[in-house]
Amino acid sequence: MATSGEFVLIEKIRELLGPPSSRVAIGVGDDAAVVSLSRNKCLATVDMMVEGVHFDLSYTLPEELGHKAIAINFSDVAAMAGQPRYALVSLGLPSSVDDSFVEAFYTGMRRLAVRFGTDIVGGNLTRAPSLVIDVTLLGEPAGSLCLRGGAKPGDLLAVTGPLGASAAGLACLRRWGRAAMNEYQELVVSHLMPFPRVTEAQVLNSTGLVTAMIDISDGLSSELHHLAKASGVGIRIDEASIPVTPATRKAGSVLGDDPMAWALGGGEDYELLFAFKPSRSISLPVPITVIGEVMGPSMGVVFRREDGREEPLPARGWDHFASRGE
Amino acid sequence: MATSGEFVLIEKIRELLGPPSSRVAIGVGDDAAVVSLSRNKCLATVDMMVEGVHFDLSYTLPEELGHKAIAINFSDVAAMAGQPRYALVSLGLPSSVDDSFVEAFYTGMRRLAVRFGTDIVGGNLTRAPSLVIDVTLLGEPAGSLCLRGGAKPGDLLAVTGPLGASAAGLACLRRWGRAAMNEYQELVVSHLMPFPRVTEAQVLNSTGLVTAMIDISDGLSSELHHLAKASGVGIRIDEASIPVTPATRKAGSVLGDDPMAWALGGGEDYELLFAFKPSRSISLPVPITVIGEVMGPSMGVVFRREDGREEPLPARGWDHFASRGE
Repeated sequence: MATSGEFVLIEKIRELLGPPSSRVAIGVGDDAAVVSLSRNKCLATVDMMVEGVHFDLSYTLPEELGHKAIAINFSDVAAMAGQPRYALVSLGLPSSVDDSFVEAFYTGMRRLAVRFGTDIVGGNLTRAPSLVIDVTLLGEPAGSLCLRGGAKPGDLLAVTGPLGASAAGLACLRRWGRAAMNEYQELVVSHLMPFPRVTEAQVLNSTGLVTAMIDISDGLSSELHHLAKASGVGIRIDEASIPVTPATRKAGSVLGDDPMAWALGGGEDYELLFAFKPSRSISLPVPITVIGEVMGPSMGVVFRREDGREEPLPARGWDHFASRGE
Repeated sequence: MATSGEFVLIEKIRELLGPPSSRVAIGVGDDAAVVSLSRNKCLATVDMMVEGVHFDLSYTLPEELGHKAIAINFSDVAAMAGQPRYALVSLGLPSSVDDSFVEAFYTGMRRLAVRFGTDIVGGNLTRAPSLVIDVTLLGEPAGSLCLRGGAKPGDLLAVTGPLGASAAGLACLRRWGRAAMNEYQELVVSHLMPFPRVTEAQVLNSTGLVTAMIDISDGLSSELHHLAKASGVGIRIDEASIPVTPATRKAGSVLGDDPMAWALGGGEDYELLFAFKPSRSISLPVPITVIGEVMGPSMGVVFRREDGREEPLPARGWDHFASRGE
């Protein structure tokens, strides 16, 4: 049940969001939102973030949290090469969170939403013992949809950006708090404000070469298994080709962590992992890194070390590689 | 990040849900769901329920919780005379909640979803310090949409069922726990398993007589104010005509509570409140109770007591009337 304080806050949020696009018949504040899609197909995804599980307010600004809460949903729609359109935002607010926090949260969220042509059209405010954020994102196909199940043996596998930076940023934040920004800003920003590959996904998909795509939220090794299972294929990736930035390597060295474990299992990279048909004139229109190839299903998911040894890569790469302790 | 235990649970849920309807191109388990709408208009609503704020597991069965979590969203779509179609379910699960709880929750939710032709197409499982449920419901117009803003002076105001039963049921549960079922089953069921007026809303709207509609979630007095504000009208309701069941009166008498306070401000009735043009042959095709009439805007929202006295009805009727302490 909304309190009168919540009604005031809803009004503030509505003001902050400004007038919605013409596609929105009914936006924030009614029983339900009423929106238009360009065709009759709708993409829908939802992601819940819980304080203490997914974020720590001691080193996260509300704007950053708003950015990330919608970014992770953009990434899901990107994974299908879809176009995001509408967001609904449920917030469970503890008493420690005040109106200005919520406004800053919405400011961060709105900034990214505007960038991707997305209206925030509704939601829900309620009390809760700790901060809970649940964002639903609706989208529509931008051309054909790109699913997980189309990879074929012989395809190459690639990612759209470096891996492990988010996990490295998290480790830095846990060690140094907000002060990690001084030396490891690139990593911290990767973790707190991931930039979803909505545009890259559409551009890649428009080449007609991409056969399967997924976003990296749980970590590369998990996503490789998802993609292999959905496509009914095996996969071999090369340690030497996995893109890890110098900053991530430096943080690993300083913190005594294995950057490759971050890259394989750290998760929250929100880069795209995709398979594509190798073509003679192979120039994909966005920067990518080829990390391996698609094999027959009997191969499973295999990791080729720099020294040439091959070993099965478990879905939970993080634990496995972290436990080597080297 | 999903744990492997969560993957097992997702598989169980997928099995329990069974194959989706042919309108669902991609359902539970992918990056995003892909669904079809019959036209290019989409209704979207979301409602968050938090343990300790909206429900108490000491007297709520998981099936009931599943029912209610989706019922309150059905009620929002019903308020517009829409047709529910697709649900996404986010769950934040504390360690005290096991897989069998989640399966029973989904069983209760699915039962109501099937009844209203709705597919559960996706969602999110995560850990959380206490149980959090956030259900997003997508729907489409069933004919024209019925909004809050069309009421005109001279219209009559009606509701689709008794009011205050849910609040009475909650009071009984708080006093007697689950044992309240013995003597007050009707009230307890009203509270734990409200039945959304999806069909009634469509039938009422199809008469062409209904000018404004809203569902009663926050309590009659609040909804009267919402409707009056959106329509730019005043409202007068009659105490004598407000439908309160004998069971609610009995619970009020036994517990020393005012049944009229429950009816005006208790909330969670999930009945429809609507304005309609009085017509010569006034036989609406579903049972309704006329509770008042729409007036000019200068009237405000007025409550006519049984003795004929008129007084302004504040939006938060509960507090006001409860504080009379009689």
